[in-house]
Amino acid sequence: MDERVREHAEVLVEWSARVEAGDDVVLSVGPEAHELAVAVAEQLGERGANLLSTFSSGEITRAYLRAHDGEFEADPAHELALVENADVYLSLGGGRNTSSTADVPGETRQAYRSARTEIRETRLGTRWVSTVHPTRSLAQQAGMAFEEYRDFAYDAILRDWESLAEEMGKMKSILDDGSEVRIVSEGTDLTMQIAGRTAVNSAASVAYDSHNLPSGEVFTAPYATEGEVTFDVPMTLRGESVRNVRLEFEDGEVVDSDAEQGESVIGEILETDEGARKLGELGIGMNRGIDRYTDNILFDEKMGETVHLALGRAYDANLPEGETGNDSAVHVDLIADVSEDSRLEVDGEVVQENGQFRWE
Amino acid sequence: MDERVREHAEVLVEWSARVEAGDDVVLSVGPEAHELAVAVAEQLGERGANLLSTFSSGEITRAYLRAHDGEFEADPAHELALVENADVYLSLGGGRNTSSTADVPGETRQAYRSARTEIRETRLGTRWVSTVHPTRSLAQQAGMAFEEYRDFAYDAILRDWESLAEEMGKMKSILDDGSEVRIVSEGTDLTMQIAGRTAVNSAASVAYDSHNLPSGEVFTAPYATEGEVTFDVPMTLRGESVRNVRLEFEDGEVVDSDAEQGESVIGEILETDEGARKLGELGIGMNRGIDRYTDNILFDEKMGETVHLALGRAYDANLPEGETGNDSAVHVDLIADVSEDSRLEVDGEVVQENGQFRWE
Repeated sequence: MDERVREHAEVLVEWSARVEAGDDVVLSVGPEAHELAVAVAEQLGERGANLLSTFSSGEITRAYLRAHDGEFEADPAHELALVENADVYLSLGGGRNTSSTADVPGETRQAYRSARTEIRETRLGTRWVSTVHPTRSLAQQAGMAFEEYRDFAYDAILRDWESLAEEMGKMKSILDDGSEVRIVSEGTDLTMQIAGRTAVNSAASVAYDSHNLPSGEVFTAPYATEGEVTFDVPMTLRGESVRNVRLEFEDGEVVDSDAEQGESVIGEILETDEGARKLGELGIGMNRGIDRYTDNILFDEKMGETVHLALGRAYDANLPEGETGNDSAVHVDLIADVSEDSRLEVDGEVVQENGQFRWE
Repeated sequence: MDERVREHAEVLVEWSARVEAGDDVVLSVGPEAHELAVAVAEQLGERGANLLSTFSSGEITRAYLRAHDGEFEADPAHELALVENADVYLSLGGGRNTSSTADVPGETRQAYRSARTEIRETRLGTRWVSTVHPTRSLAQQAGMAFEEYRDFAYDAILRDWESLAEEMGKMKSILDDGSEVRIVSEGTDLTMQIAGRTAVNSAASVAYDSHNLPSGEVFTAPYATEGEVTFDVPMTLRGESVRNVRLEFEDGEVVDSDAEQGESVIGEILETDEGARKLGELGIGMNRGIDRYTDNILFDEKMGETVHLALGRAYDANLPEGETGNDSAVHVDLIADVSEDSRLEVDGEVVQENGQFRWE
């Protein structure tokens, strides 16, 4: 076993999920994540946690969903009981084909998802962490050789999280104390209000309210957005390539949009509901282990020297207790490179210029 | 997908487990049983059952058990809650290496097993069925090529179960009405008492109290065994090859034993406890789809034209309500070929001669 697989498992169990003796752990394993699961099982055994493995296969889900006719039963008792009694939920992604459920109708997917709301929310109440085992299918999606992709993935995952958390803490303080953010770059001059909002230091640990490994971003929930922004990091959205999306905001809402590629997908998203025309998230990517785009949002949005904005739903963690932020059925992240000819200002002071933070 | 995989799934879900709409089904999937799991998921979707997949990997279990130190927590709440809320438990065996847990110390295995008694008993209270997906590692264990093994396995699994159940019903009636069984063959002249005991028609369906697919045996719980028996079907017991085991019984107990190979393993088993020297089961193999030995008890003991006897624990299903039969920590099946120079008598009447039943 590659030593990095063991290190990945240790970071996941120790830093990310803070597993302790006696924890009831559900380990959700993708069809190609077996090797990582073995390493995680070893970590769980060492700590005296209790292990139950579930199997998460897109092909099994596809077969089930396509054969199913009529309504889905709401929150089946056996699965609900499992998550209700779990302390920790670790999801090890990694399949053979990132398009394995491509021919399941959208309505079926949505109906299945809706029928499982309580299971999902209960799971989100555990110490949950999502990660991926680097697989050939993820390498292919990234346009990379397998060995090359493994190097990339472990560079992103095996950070010095404690020191990155400390650095990200600086960014969080600036956002927490600030009122207005301005981003200036080629094709971008955008201002957003953030007064009264709380930034999350997403340091890949439940101790930081952060549930992705890798992580490495600081994000908040902006409002009253004005100006225009161009997203030059390419991505696949709903199966379509999307490139150089340009959005124009007035009074917090998108009033105009175009794209070099994928314009119709962006149009569809904007028309989902009222909230889809407003921003739900401003995120600052600070993981310099991620230095290239791989068409996987788990990695892309944390890339160092990028910022991302999400159309749609805001996260509760960014809002004052009891307040609801922008609401929508969607949350779609779009990413801009800010490594050159760019600056990020908070209340008129430059915080990041050409990718470099002011403390660097 | 090989059409036989779909047929296997259909037999499992329809005939064996009697799955209905709304059933909460746990599907336990081995690392190489993915294809069968996809076919089963399709069957479950069609019937409107609720599916949760768990992952059963010897390598994950090995890593966990070897790393674990100290006592195991009894019946972890999350796994217990899962099985308590399950209606059906389908186990799809199939790994990459039938020796994957070979270096886990026996005491660790035993301690883990003991700590999970309530989980196991709860699972046995569901409509549970165990089957295997034919894999390369099972082919290797059988000394067969992969394609050859698949043909073998599907011949065993895809029977006309309804008509086999009817035929086995004849054998069950004979045993239920009989008092004494005598088996005569080369190296064998053995009599057993079965008065008051009830035979199980093990027709691979929960409707018949039968939980293996394939099945195809009729079994009861004998006592007061006298005489000698030779088991000429080879097998692997506790990692050791065992051949031509000979046992001599007096007053229901083994008083002498030897073997051409594996004599020490047989000695160990006999010394486990008092019950290990008595018989817990007499089984008549009636699945003629199984025509060769493959070193896998799930198949071997059901082979047509064989009988098997188990040292150790008797099954409750064979006993009058409230009565306990032979008790032991072990239940070890040994198999004899009765296809030639052999006869099986019940109360002095020949029921099977040279492998042919009297109704054939």
